[in-house]
Amino acid sequence: MSDTVLFDRIALIGLGLIGSSLGHALKRDGLVGHIAGTARSASTRDKAMEIGFIDSAHETAFEVVADADLVVICAPVGAYAAIAEQIAPGLKNGCIVTDVGSVKKAVLRDVGPYLPEGVFLVPGHPVAGTENSGPEAGFPELYEGRYCIITPPADANQAAVAKVVEMWKKVGSIVEIMDADHHDRVLAITSHLPHLIAYTIVGTASDLEEHLRRESAHNGELIRTSEVIKFSAGGFRDFTRIAASDPVMWRDIFLNNKEAVLEVLGRFSEDLIALQRAIRWGEGDKLESWFERTRAIRREIIEMKQAGSFSAVELEGAQSNEIPEGGSDPDLKS
Amino acid sequence: MSDTVLFDRIALIGLGLIGSSLGHALKRDGLVGHIAGTARSASTRDKAMEIGFIDSAHETAFEVVADADLVVICAPVGAYAAIAEQIAPGLKNGCIVTDVGSVKKAVLRDVGPYLPEGVFLVPGHPVAGTENSGPEAGFPELYEGRYCIITPPADANQAAVAKVVEMWKKVGSIVEIMDADHHDRVLAITSHLPHLIAYTIVGTASDLEEHLRRESAHNGELIRTSEVIKFSAGGFRDFTRIAASDPVMWRDIFLNNKEAVLEVLGRFSEDLIALQRAIRWGEGDKLESWFERTRAIRREIIEMKQAGSFSAVELEGAQSNEIPEGGSDPDLKS
Repeated sequence: MSDTVLFDRIALIGLGLIGSSLGHALKRDGLVGHIAGTARSASTRDKAMEIGFIDSAHETAFEVVADADLVVICAPVGAYAAIAEQIAPGLKNGCIVTDVGSVKKAVLRDVGPYLPEGVFLVPGHPVAGTENSGPEAGFPELYEGRYCIITPPADANQAAVAKVVEMWKKVGSIVEIMDADHHDRVLAITSHLPHLIAYTIVGTASDLEEHLRRESAHNGELIRTSEVIKFSAGGFRDFTRIAASDPVMWRDIFLNNKEAVLEVLGRFSEDLIALQRAIRWGEGDKLESWFERTRAIRREIIEMKQAGSFSAVELEGAQSNEIPEGGSDPDLKS
Repeated sequence: MSDTVLFDRIALIGLGLIGSSLGHALKRDGLVGHIAGTARSASTRDKAMEIGFIDSAHETAFEVVADADLVVICAPVGAYAAIAEQIAPGLKNGCIVTDVGSVKKAVLRDVGPYLPEGVFLVPGHPVAGTENSGPEAGFPELYEGRYCIITPPADANQAAVAKVVEMWKKVGSIVEIMDADHHDRVLAITSHLPHLIAYTIVGTASDLEEHLRRESAHNGELIRTSEVIKFSAGGFRDFTRIAASDPVMWRDIFLNNKEAVLEVLGRFSEDLIALQRAIRWGEGDKLESWFERTRAIRREIIEMKQAGSFSAVELEGAQSNEIPEGGSDPDLKS
């Protein structure tokens, strides 16, 4: 075992963008001896072997964890309990179990109870990703400069936590440690609510789109292209990007962070109704002062210029020190 | 007057991104004889003269329209009535008045009544823009491949409509003609509602941010950077970009497209409550099927690949023919 090797053998359960990127990075830097991988579909397993970010492919989660020093669960959160139940009898003493899920209290609840004595649970959440997914989508630089949030349980083994932290740091992440409850509340507002809102508005527009299509035909014009799609540059299109996210993964996130999501959703709805009322009653001052306030948040994000939390494209936009007067929307006028 | 000259003299009222870009494009292609410009601030007028996209600067809207063949109003919609009242006595016979506002019924209502006989109103809406604004932000290519929606009143002078259409086509736009009411309903869903939602969620997060900050300090940690900002890559940041848009312009849009905005907002709220209920009651199937449906819209946008309605950066993302399984969010896992 060389100096740089963190784990002799790791097991990846799930071989999509996150799992494959981790495999690539660990291999490139010689951080592990052997990477065993499993995925539900045989074609994913074959592809992973072909690309070479795993050293061996296994049909089941039970098989893949044999003799592993570290197990990384990279599957939708709703599958965690079944995976934990399946792997528990196969985990060797001293093994560390971690994951990459977007909710963290559920990991303690769903995985914790299955793990035998002498196996250490250290949940994690790399806040990183790209437009693409699947085993072909991974690349070793994915985690560079990105946050990775580690949420150890109160009684966590500190040596195990240190090893997981070290791994994420070695692949380039900025590691933050917080408790799972705090993580879930922060991500409810920074990620889960934005996704729910985007899913909602795109669905609403999809219904209206049919409506507008029919109406145009009724007026004697035959509109073949949806006008909602056609004029989506006015703001709508930004939402469709988020709302194309994986349905199963996001279903599981909402079901497993119910409490925090419903709490922020309640706040959002109150605020929306207040703005709706201001529009109805023509209260321009209220609208304007609300809109002024929201620019401050954008300014903070621009000022942060935290390479780790910005993609290259976005960073470019953010590097202007000025808040654009007319905003950033193709529909905006100054 | 050469063959390419469309108007001997035009007047720009408002010299921000949209007005300056139009000036640049018209000058580059020799489409106008003289461009007169006005803006409320002297420094904007001076800057416009210095950059050279106008030939003469004037202190008032009344002065700038003298002898103009075309007047283009590039100001927030809430200022239209006052501008129309001011310019009406100065408009020469045969003059065409157009605008670039994001709402169109209000133009007929606020500008129409002031215009004398022999002056032709042809409202327009170039669906184009960038992150930046102000007289320095303009560039001649802004309108290339972008939609421009023209909404002539029922009794419009057809020769005047043709000239406005020709101008936008000459600067590169794809021109669509529709009635003002239809425009306002289409844009309510593709642009106005998305902006309102973005403003709302960023405000909600801003309140919660203070809350999370305090709480962290209470637990003994001293968090100096807001966690909402720090982990904004998970989806939230996309909304802050839109919510940094010009407060006055957007106040005016909501107040002047009240009916259509309240209508789509009602639909959105119903849908959001339905999803909220599904989360509360753990109805995973409902969530999943909703989320599946919204991907179809994204797919249509990607398939359209309509250069005109996509910025270079966005087009690049959209050129992949696949809907990304894991979505496009840095927080997404596959």
